[in-house]
Amino acid sequence: MKSIIGSCIASFSLLASAQQQTGNFSSTSPFPTNAPIPGNYTGALRPQVHFSPPQGFMNDPNGMFVGKDGVYHLYYQLNPSAVVAGNQHWGHATSKDLYHWDNQPIALYPPVKNSGVFSGSAVTDPNNTSGMFLVWNALIHPITNTIPGFFPDQDNGVVAIFTVNYGDLSIQTQDIAYSFDGGYTFEWYEGNPIIDTNSANFRDPKVSRYGDQWVMVVTWSQDFVIGIFTSPDLKNWTHTSNFTEHGLLGAQYECPNLLSIPTRDYDTGEPGENLDLLTISLNPGAPLGGSVTEYFIGNFNGTHFNTIDAATRLNDFAKDNYAGQFFYGIPADEPQIDIAWASNWQYTNRVPTASEGFRSIMSVPRAHYLTNATRIGWVLATEPYNIEALHPNTTLAEKDWKAPNGSLTVDFSNVESNALHFSIDVSNLNNTAYGPNPTLNFTFTSPVSGEFIRAGFQFAADNAFWLDRSGTHGMSDDVFWTDKFSVADIYNGTHWNVEGVLDRSVLELFVDRGVHAATMLYYPESPLTVLSVASNDLSEEAEVEVKVWGLESTWGAKKGSDGVVRGNVTTMS
Amino acid sequence: MKSIIGSCIASFSLLASAQQQTGNFSSTSPFPTNAPIPGNYTGALRPQVHFSPPQGFMNDPNGMFVGKDGVYHLYYQLNPSAVVAGNQHWGHATSKDLYHWDNQPIALYPPVKNSGVFSGSAVTDPNNTSGMFLVWNALIHPITNTIPGFFPDQDNGVVAIFTVNYGDLSIQTQDIAYSFDGGYTFEWYEGNPIIDTNSANFRDPKVSRYGDQWVMVVTWSQDFVIGIFTSPDLKNWTHTSNFTEHGLLGAQYECPNLLSIPTRDYDTGEPGENLDLLTISLNPGAPLGGSVTEYFIGNFNGTHFNTIDAATRLNDFAKDNYAGQFFYGIPADEPQIDIAWASNWQYTNRVPTASEGFRSIMSVPRAHYLTNATRIGWVLATEPYNIEALHPNTTLAEKDWKAPNGSLTVDFSNVESNALHFSIDVSNLNNTAYGPNPTLNFTFTSPVSGEFIRAGFQFAADNAFWLDRSGTHGMSDDVFWTDKFSVADIYNGTHWNVEGVLDRSVLELFVDRGVHAATMLYYPESPLTVLSVASNDLSEEAEVEVKVWGLESTWGAKKGSDGVVRGNVTTMS
Repeated sequence: MKSIIGSCIASFSLLASAQQQTGNFSSTSPFPTNAPIPGNYTGALRPQVHFSPPQGFMNDPNGMFVGKDGVYHLYYQLNPSAVVAGNQHWGHATSKDLYHWDNQPIALYPPVKNSGVFSGSAVTDPNNTSGMFLVWNALIHPITNTIPGFFPDQDNGVVAIFTVNYGDLSIQTQDIAYSFDGGYTFEWYEGNPIIDTNSANFRDPKVSRYGDQWVMVVTWSQDFVIGIFTSPDLKNWTHTSNFTEHGLLGAQYECPNLLSIPTRDYDTGEPGENLDLLTISLNPGAPLGGSVTEYFIGNFNGTHFNTIDAATRLNDFAKDNYAGQFFYGIPADEPQIDIAWASNWQYTNRVPTASEGFRSIMSVPRAHYLTNATRIGWVLATEPYNIEALHPNTTLAEKDWKAPNGSLTVDFSNVESNALHFSIDVSNLNNTAYGPNPTLNFTFTSPVSGEFIRAGFQFAADNAFWLDRSGTHGMSDDVFWTDKFSVADIYNGTHWNVEGVLDRSVLELFVDRGVHAATMLYYPESPLTVLSVASNDLSEEAEVEVKVWGLESTWGAKKGSDGVVRGNVTTMS
Repeated sequence: MKSIIGSCIASFSLLASAQQQTGNFSSTSPFPTNAPIPGNYTGALRPQVHFSPPQGFMNDPNGMFVGKDGVYHLYYQLNPSAVVAGNQHWGHATSKDLYHWDNQPIALYPPVKNSGVFSGSAVTDPNNTSGMFLVWNALIHPITNTIPGFFPDQDNGVVAIFTVNYGDLSIQTQDIAYSFDGGYTFEWYEGNPIIDTNSANFRDPKVSRYGDQWVMVVTWSQDFVIGIFTSPDLKNWTHTSNFTEHGLLGAQYECPNLLSIPTRDYDTGEPGENLDLLTISLNPGAPLGGSVTEYFIGNFNGTHFNTIDAATRLNDFAKDNYAGQFFYGIPADEPQIDIAWASNWQYTNRVPTASEGFRSIMSVPRAHYLTNATRIGWVLATEPYNIEALHPNTTLAEKDWKAPNGSLTVDFSNVESNALHFSIDVSNLNNTAYGPNPTLNFTFTSPVSGEFIRAGFQFAADNAFWLDRSGTHGMSDDVFWTDKFSVADIYNGTHWNVEGVLDRSVLELFVDRGVHAATMLYYPESPLTVLSVASNDLSEEAEVEVKVWGLESTWGAKKGSDGVVRGNVTTMS
């Protein structure tokens, strides 16, 4: 990037007229602007413990924060007027447990015709930092004033920081909006844009708090540059450094995150010192095609991010996890929670859920820390966040066996949601005393259609964990629908586990205490209702423990007598 | 890596008895030791313009050099006694054009029982540099002497530098052997090992000439370290630096290359200054599963390799290209030629060619340079080396069309080899004047079985080039047999091309002047004999030019009247 700062004001006049808009332009949406969009969550492909939009097309999660009232806010890229990407609004939902969601009215609308409110983040501003006003370009006219900030009279102010894509101008700018009601409705800041570099590909600001300043990471996407900016007040931003051409480039960088994250010892779980994490999503051009997220481990000093090594690490070994965003407001000594878009740009506009009125779903909320795994060293560990809170009192099935071979088959056709949580632990392993083909495999099957998805671990033979959706029919003719995924898991030789969440059209797996994670969409013609687990050729003393829980639909309790989920129709006026 | 040098002599005494062996241990091979192994190259899955071993299991290419007589030498990891990996010898073949190969007698045998001659490289030593003899550990006892080198009386001496895997000792050492006859037979150096760090995973030395010294890159595989050593004489080596934890790690580093490589302007083809290239193969743990090669661009200063950026680049976007090695002896200002193992450790031991007596094939020879491609910058460009030399006088088919839509179908069932070279050029593109779904797709089909492989480019929609082997039956039930591959190709907006080599069980593609390359195995039940090419929705002025050449089998002329290729049975005594 040459002369980024030099070009900061180049397009200011061009934008001036656009910025006269109030930020509530919605020419093409057939939906109400002051009530949630209703949704039918009963479809055969509609996930029951994952978030999905009531109607329309969803992509990146945006603006995620947790308020002091404990309410988690999830905004998301939404096209309310079609089930393909475009016409970007910020949809909105809230939850107290990250699984039971209340749909809220659309939070942000495109400001002018042919514009879109693209991805971004949100922060709470309890100390009214926006009260220290500096004129727009602080480098040229530094003037300190005591103009009141956005939130002189409250401690629950929220500021959203996002990209506006001006389609007619081919310009992307960073803009802000502020909320007096804790994130439900927003006022468009009259000083927008807050950063403009006259670039057509400059987007996805993620803001967090570092010391006494705000820090933004944002991408010049096609230059493969993560810009780092700091600000005292969320309005005036200083460019402090670039993180350039790291890792896999693909053809664009998008949706960065920068955060402090706890470390834990891989064997004991003991906490260590925090490190800093920088994630970059790239699309197109992932090694498996399309979209993927990579991450870098290092230290952020307030202006620069320095990596601890030159390694490139991927956060998911399947193909349906992109643009994950971390919640603002999780204490730094706790595992950091993100939610990702569970899809891939290569085929997201063609998945068959359109027949149910929506396209795209989010991953489950995931708790993350860094751990020093066997051989491969530092790695981002991933767990489904507190999914135990969804458990019924008893397991649907559980079985232990202490033998090289053993199996369990569970018919879960009585689980109305078709959703399971399951864990498989293999302990007392002795990796020098295996039989010739030591494996732990499991399959989810539809007895009706014969379709299946399957996975397994080879304890020998390069320690491959594999995952296969080729046995389901939906999308199988699509030339981008890669069918098989795998990862090398150098576990510790004595204990191995896999945990998973199965839902109607997605399987998420967390392998070896979450050292490797996979997010895999699948589209069966008939629900998968039988789980089979089997071990083979393990060492004589090995012990296998399988637990399976049927999960109640988190959307079931939200629906009215007509089956429609109407969301929060009472809070809003 | 800690105290690598400190541990250099730790296992020396352990190895002393092993090193008494002559280097011609061959307890398990049923094959002659002084003549080539015979091979039948007529099988339905046996490639006709690619190298494959006469019998047995092949993996990494080794010891590749071109002699002053213009003969290219290809050695390779060979198990002569089974069609699965193991019992590693160095097989050998020679060629004057890199396509017509003469099988030669096995060049290197395991030195002791339960050992293997693992991968390595070879150099020519016309100046007898091995004449400056230093005692084994130069750091401890530096003594210069004038003992004659290996080759006092000739200018065609060859030294092979390779890893010996001592299975019973769990140690891998670097060893050398020298050849008086230009690389056909080798003497085991009595001062072996030349480097021993008491490591069980220390292998794959690749030696090249830099200034007045020899330079070796070698992996401490499971520490993710490329060690760089220098030597005046190929016998005494000094550790100068490590290149550690760069790029994707997988679970092991293997088979590095370090070389000077030409640059060319992407648009004009004009040559620029050379840069240096470091390649690392990793297995297991590639993003697509199993094996892959990544590369780094930078500058080598005689002791250290410094990258120009922190990017991670992959040399192939499909799944069957690993351990590529560059020939020693190609002038530095010419495109550098490599050959790769065209397989993947995830399934190589199960591919169906075992029924034809062999497993694994090599890629075609590939010529490489660096170029500064649209948007993504420096990239390793790849071309099939001089495959035009295999062309008949006329094309099998060719067609131009100047229209958004057009097509060509070629029945090539009369091409006995089933092997084609083809090129498809699309020019006069205007990427703002496309129809809604601008594509150039092509398919190879078997009218007998209905099987197919297919590929295509989407000129819009994220510029995805895709490749699909799901339409063939062989291996499709294997859980590691990934079926679809793709890459984002940000071509220059006006001209795009793809070139390919189809053989009986492999397709190699070179996309956008070789900016992206793919190596894809496939195993049809019936030969693919029909090619169809079609364009759709291109801009009005676009011009499509397709050329197809049938290729004669390079093995056909080598076979006797009984159909068996016996190799070079006359040169050897």
